[in-house]
Amino acid sequence: MPTLTTTPRQDGFRMPAEFEPHTGCWMLWPQRSDNWRSGAKPAQQAFTKVAITISQFEPVTVGVCPEQYQNARQKLPASIRVVEILADDAWMRDVGPTFVINDNGDVRGVDWGFNAWGGLKGGIYFPWDQDVLVAQKVLEIERVKRYKAPLILEGGSIHVDGQGAAITTEECLLHPNRNPQLFKAQIEQYLKDYLNVETVIWLGQGVYNDETNGHIDNLCCFIRPGEVALTWTDDPHDPQYAISEDAYQRLQAATDARGRRLKIHKLHQPGPLYLTEAESQGIDQVEGSQPRRTGSRLPASYVNFYIANGGVVMPLFDDPHDQAAQTALQALFPDRKVVGLPSREILLGGGNIHCITQQQPSGI
Amino acid sequence: MPTLTTTPRQDGFRMPAEFEPHTGCWMLWPQRSDNWRSGAKPAQQAFTKVAITISQFEPVTVGVCPEQYQNARQKLPASIRVVEILADDAWMRDVGPTFVINDNGDVRGVDWGFNAWGGLKGGIYFPWDQDVLVAQKVLEIERVKRYKAPLILEGGSIHVDGQGAAITTEECLLHPNRNPQLFKAQIEQYLKDYLNVETVIWLGQGVYNDETNGHIDNLCCFIRPGEVALTWTDDPHDPQYAISEDAYQRLQAATDARGRRLKIHKLHQPGPLYLTEAESQGIDQVEGSQPRRTGSRLPASYVNFYIANGGVVMPLFDDPHDQAAQTALQALFPDRKVVGLPSREILLGGGNIHCITQQQPSGI
Repeated sequence: MPTLTTTPRQDGFRMPAEFEPHTGCWMLWPQRSDNWRSGAKPAQQAFTKVAITISQFEPVTVGVCPEQYQNARQKLPASIRVVEILADDAWMRDVGPTFVINDNGDVRGVDWGFNAWGGLKGGIYFPWDQDVLVAQKVLEIERVKRYKAPLILEGGSIHVDGQGAAITTEECLLHPNRNPQLFKAQIEQYLKDYLNVETVIWLGQGVYNDETNGHIDNLCCFIRPGEVALTWTDDPHDPQYAISEDAYQRLQAATDARGRRLKIHKLHQPGPLYLTEAESQGIDQVEGSQPRRTGSRLPASYVNFYIANGGVVMPLFDDPHDQAAQTALQALFPDRKVVGLPSREILLGGGNIHCITQQQPSGI
Repeated sequence: MPTLTTTPRQDGFRMPAEFEPHTGCWMLWPQRSDNWRSGAKPAQQAFTKVAITISQFEPVTVGVCPEQYQNARQKLPASIRVVEILADDAWMRDVGPTFVINDNGDVRGVDWGFNAWGGLKGGIYFPWDQDVLVAQKVLEIERVKRYKAPLILEGGSIHVDGQGAAITTEECLLHPNRNPQLFKAQIEQYLKDYLNVETVIWLGQGVYNDETNGHIDNLCCFIRPGEVALTWTDDPHDPQYAISEDAYQRLQAATDARGRRLKIHKLHQPGPLYLTEAESQGIDQVEGSQPRRTGSRLPASYVNFYIANGGVVMPLFDDPHDQAAQTALQALFPDRKVVGLPSREILLGGGNIHCITQQQPSGI
């Protein structure tokens, strides 16, 4: 499929909000034993549950490395499409394309640069050569034209409201291990060109101890135009407190592309949660891969949910805050069915339900 | 996608003839250096020309192993879809699905068993575990339901007329290295059940020294209902002579499913052609892979062409018979544009243009 030399903005394409209609959802199949414990088998079960749940709302395709093809095809129900895509890990949000649409119902895809969340200066593993190809492979399968964006960016580091505003964090997008040659204004211009937005709302840090360098999708997201959900803690001694408080202040001060003030919904975080010794011991230790140490704080957040057609699939942590978070989310999405899934296993790998999914908008 | 436990015949699906309309054509990308000389680079060029030529008539998708993905994507024009499919070699005719259609325009696929043209008793390479998965991977990408046929069969060993008749060879389908547990009548019944035909026309041997154990697609094919093209030689001292003569006799004696006698068009073979020392030396020698010895007779045949929407793509061999064959084929297909492509490079790998392609019928 052709790679275009223009930008979505030039061609009248924009990234729609996640709550706009989808043709389906893309995921990848976890397998690397230096990130997922016990040979990734518990993670595969957790991903399978996410895929099955989303497939009740919209078609799901799971990309899988060749050596796991047969296993994934057997473990996933027949209603889920399984295609071969070699990847270095399983974060479709970050390595997949960002789909953009125009007013005619056409769909195209943005293929960002990728360096495993920081390359040789703090990245999570080495190499990441197969991750780099995932977005293009998805677009080829779907016969969708491709924009190749000239900057390093993961899909989890941006959110849009579908009405001209994007939200992101300085911690991630201005991190020197991503695009050190670009000033903030240049990065903002690329967001405007490739997402086709007018306004970029900059928060500061992401969730405490988030190895992605503070992806927005673990901290805050649009639930509809003019409204956001923000992970929160009432405990002033928790290092997350100052981060969420700063985000709250910035959100209160912001206006979106249509001049609206934002309505901010706080979702109290679980925990705090920590990696157990048993969990740590199940993970292979490999030079160049992020170590997973016993006792390290896990960046758990209820904001890391996926919005499907008619549904919301949210993480649960077997935590006292679970019920309140699910009740709150259901109130925020009265027209969608909110389904909670135990997702500590996904969290152990460094992300959550939003990080392992990528919506494909329908364009109409 | 679901795997069905019924048969195409039970469900009202039939294999259409190659000259019925297609939605596109599937190919694979050659790379194994123990079958294709010079690191498969000349073969990749030849396959690229075939893909480009067919893409002028109908959409083409090329499946490629992960390590060659970038190279194939660069070498093939953007109009050709490239998807990742790990395979042991590049014979989409033999490892791909046989698509079947019904009267409503629905398309399904038959996934045959595969053992690399003979398994451990004369097969061409070992292992073939990835080839086995190719048909399913194609069907998943296309979201097409799958029949798993309970016998070993390569797509190149069958042809149909779309009106109830199939043609095949005893040499291949009755070879003890394919389905030794099945009698001829059982194999014929499987063909009737999975292709949904009434009549199976059995020829004897395939082309002389054809390592596939005599695939029909190198010997004889339907050009329209009631008419076949047969590879031929006028030289009674050529070992091909008796083979073609026997096929001719059997074809003359046959009637198709509608009771017609067949009109037989002879296509005089090229050569005979032999593997040169330079060609042989470019091929890696690997235990378990078919050796390619200097001086061995190549199974060259003009019958190994591909019928596309509005076109025919036929092999040429830089041979004195080329022109007559192309003129004859053009006369046989007055409504299609016949394009000849130099294809010795494909022949060196053991097949030709028909062997490396697989049509996906449109179903309407």
